[in-house]
Amino acid sequence: MEILLSTGNWPPKAWVEGLSKSNLVSAVHVWPTESDLSNVEVLLVWKPLPAGIIELLPNLKFISSIGAGVDHLLGDSQIPLDLPVARIVDERLTGDMTNYVMMAVVMHQRNLLHVLENQKQAKWERHHYPNLRVGVMGLGELGGHLARTLSGAGFEVSGYSRSSKQIDRVATFNGADRSEFLKDLDVLVNLLPVTSETENILNKDLFGQIKPGAFLINVARGAHLDEMDLLDALEKGIISRAMLDVFKEEPLPSDHPFWGHPKITITPHIASVTTPASAMKLVLENCRRLRDGEKFLHLVDLQRGY
Amino acid sequence: MEILLSTGNWPPKAWVEGLSKSNLVSAVHVWPTESDLSNVEVLLVWKPLPAGIIELLPNLKFISSIGAGVDHLLGDSQIPLDLPVARIVDERLTGDMTNYVMMAVVMHQRNLLHVLENQKQAKWERHHYPNLRVGVMGLGELGGHLARTLSGAGFEVSGYSRSSKQIDRVATFNGADRSEFLKDLDVLVNLLPVTSETENILNKDLFGQIKPGAFLINVARGAHLDEMDLLDALEKGIISRAMLDVFKEEPLPSDHPFWGHPKITITPHIASVTTPASAMKLVLENCRRLRDGEKFLHLVDLQRGY
Repeated sequence: MEILLSTGNWPPKAWVEGLSKSNLVSAVHVWPTESDLSNVEVLLVWKPLPAGIIELLPNLKFISSIGAGVDHLLGDSQIPLDLPVARIVDERLTGDMTNYVMMAVVMHQRNLLHVLENQKQAKWERHHYPNLRVGVMGLGELGGHLARTLSGAGFEVSGYSRSSKQIDRVATFNGADRSEFLKDLDVLVNLLPVTSETENILNKDLFGQIKPGAFLINVARGAHLDEMDLLDALEKGIISRAMLDVFKEEPLPSDHPFWGHPKITITPHIASVTTPASAMKLVLENCRRLRDGEKFLHLVDLQRGY
Repeated sequence: MEILLSTGNWPPKAWVEGLSKSNLVSAVHVWPTESDLSNVEVLLVWKPLPAGIIELLPNLKFISSIGAGVDHLLGDSQIPLDLPVARIVDERLTGDMTNYVMMAVVMHQRNLLHVLENQKQAKWERHHYPNLRVGVMGLGELGGHLARTLSGAGFEVSGYSRSSKQIDRVATFNGADRSEFLKDLDVLVNLLPVTSETENILNKDLFGQIKPGAFLINVARGAHLDEMDLLDALEKGIISRAMLDVFKEEPLPSDHPFWGHPKITITPHIASVTTPASAMKLVLENCRRLRDGEKFLHLVDLQRGY
């Protein structure tokens, strides 16, 4: 079968090489291209979905995001609602995300940025450190794994999700219990999916309910965060520090006020990065299922949004 | 019973308050003191063990280190060989140590120090990151827990110990297999106990066997590290970077060459810090066992050294 690849800012090389090795694949086209795309059955895409691309693909059977997120495909009226759309669910992606957050939480607990500053002055300053209560918003594939791992690592953990969930040794909250969830947190981690309900959910209403001085970690999407409200909450000390891996606009524009902010740590969307070799296995398994008429893995409900 | 407390550089306040609340304890003396110590039965001590202290305690029944380490008590001829000596084995200490190393490993994998530098220049630079093989030297209480946790987090893990050990999904080596253990490592973590055999074990012989460019994490004791050999290995690029939490002399003297070294990250012995509230439970349990004539928990063999 023929595949069209649109990898956005990422280099397509590893994907082209890997996919070409499979017996299932007869041609790999890379967008943008002038080639005849009329036999393409599979579209693999990272954001943004190029405008007008779908109408060039009369034989399209299946779309797969090549990352865990599908927000770049949501609400795009180009995509027929009956077309199957999948995302990558990859053990490595889940583990990478959890490891990043563990790093961020322990850096905060040990006051590591302060320790690094101390080193510049040859200053030895020991301190006892408290145990922390970490709250995880979003208890899906990623958030659930994170909550269990944090709890196993000795942190006190709370979790919040839209529908009710139970996780061993995690205090879970849902729906209207959000302020109960927020009021005891030393650290808040956002791992919600992006939907119309969760856009800008990290805003002044939420900051007004959290334990004053909490540390915010956003590893889901920039769309979740009201940037002005965060600057205001940092200014007032309601949020003591934020570690942000995702932004409304990526790359974060060089004149953005977050870059130079003393209470914001910026990482360039590296909490969890799709590894082509690892994600490709899943994509090829779905290609096989397409050929054999079997049910696809990890389909997304475009209406619900995840 | 009466207790004598010698906490070295740490403030004794939390210990005094906590111990005084117990019905088992009739008096808590804090060293140095002019009080009559003839009824003291229990000595709780952090390093160094003050010279001459033991001979002031004719009724001493039991010594406990108030940390996981007992190297400050080893080979001290003040201590009669038949006196029971215990250390703190505390779930929290083990978890804290593992969390610190997880943080250090993930910081290295994500190139976090470089990312922090990039932020100062408003520079967005993404990179794929490799999986890493992490080697843990010492597979006791702390090293074993660390090896299992790293493996569960998706890292490839090797372990080395004096005697043979088996840990699920960890490639274990012992005795003369040390060079086999070292040759594939991206990261080496030292968690050995300090004994006459392991002193200065992190030296040019070992660095000569490790995969060139490895990252070194020392969280055990400063006595394990030959400081000049490390500086030389960093200079030659055999070791790419070191993160050190423990030092031959602590606090690390302000004129020490490690402080300003661009390839060394220094933390002030905070990988794992005894929390008085948590360690006190174990100490009081041993006091109860003393009163009731039961066997002590977590005794140390002063001859073997751990």
